[in-house]
Amino acid sequence: MFSVELGLEVLERTPAVLRALLQGLSPDWTNANEGPDTWSPYDVVGHLIHGERADWMTRVNIILQPGGGTFHTFDRFAQFRESQGKSLSQLLDEFAAARRDSLAALRALALTDTDLDKTGTHPKFGAVTLRQLLSTWVAHDMDHLMQISRVLGKQLKDDVGPWTEYLRVVRS
Amino acid sequence: MFSVELGLEVLERTPAVLRALLQGLSPDWTNANEGPDTWSPYDVVGHLIHGERADWMTRVNIILQPGGGTFHTFDRFAQFRESQGKSLSQLLDEFAAARRDSLAALRALALTDTDLDKTGTHPKFGAVTLRQLLSTWVAHDMDHLMQISRVLGKQLKDDVGPWTEYLRVVRS
Repeated sequence: MFSVELGLEVLERTPAVLRALLQGLSPDWTNANEGPDTWSPYDVVGHLIHGERADWMTRVNIILQPGGGTFHTFDRFAQFRESQGKSLSQLLDEFAAARRDSLAALRALALTDTDLDKTGTHPKFGAVTLRQLLSTWVAHDMDHLMQISRVLGKQLKDDVGPWTEYLRVVRS
Repeated sequence: MFSVELGLEVLERTPAVLRALLQGLSPDWTNANEGPDTWSPYDVVGHLIHGERADWMTRVNIILQPGGGTFHTFDRFAQFRESQGKSLSQLLDEFAAARRDSLAALRALALTDTDLDKTGTHPKFGAVTLRQLLSTWVAHDMDHLMQISRVLGKQLKDDVGPWTEYLRVVRS
């Protein structure tokens, strides 16, 4: 179902969604995770900022450059350095600003269907199209919103008693 | 980790989260579902409204009445009647108003730890405590936010190409 316009609808909403969900929420929630080597909502927001600054538009531009090119590897741990010393509120502001910049740049490209078929080289997957990259950007937002909802809900797994049976969020 | 105050933090945010995510989004997104007998984001908002009006505070009050009482069954299909003819924007407004009313009533109860240990009878589970009910209300919000994120992300499952491997949201 992907189109650039439908994708933009979601991408432009994510900063406000995360702000509505996380701004002012107690650290008991925002620093909670799903166990060792899993991420808290705070970690996820840092990850999204890094993607905005280092990955998504960088990869779009690599695909659009003459002859394409190879992507660098997405650094899935950058946020553990880059978020240090920052409040969640600061991170939410940074994400909103970074996303705004990315989407302004994306819109300025006025992508055509021909552009969407252009390819770059993913270090693991090989040739991928711009359409696949942009679809992945949108799905990646929803993947992490799903993760944050799950992390928050799961904190109640010992509190809900028999309702565990009806709540996928505390079991997954 | 449940406490009434931590629970309220999440419950009071959900209407704004859903509005930030869904208001003005194309029907291609908001009416999409995960296949036969699954719910769209539009359906989920209707379900949340019904819960607000018919279930959560009703059950709280049953537990607090002298001698407790038995809950009616939660109608998981009410939204298919009650949302008919309404726009998603109307439903988001209704949910925000209904949630505001529920939480005002909940706060007015000034619940004590003793209250939280009181029980009502669930038609399937038998005795459940007020603490379990309130925890479930919060987890239920996150369960449905997780569901909406998943439904939206999953619409891109045929578009993301090899990135399927990294995106739990399109596989689950």
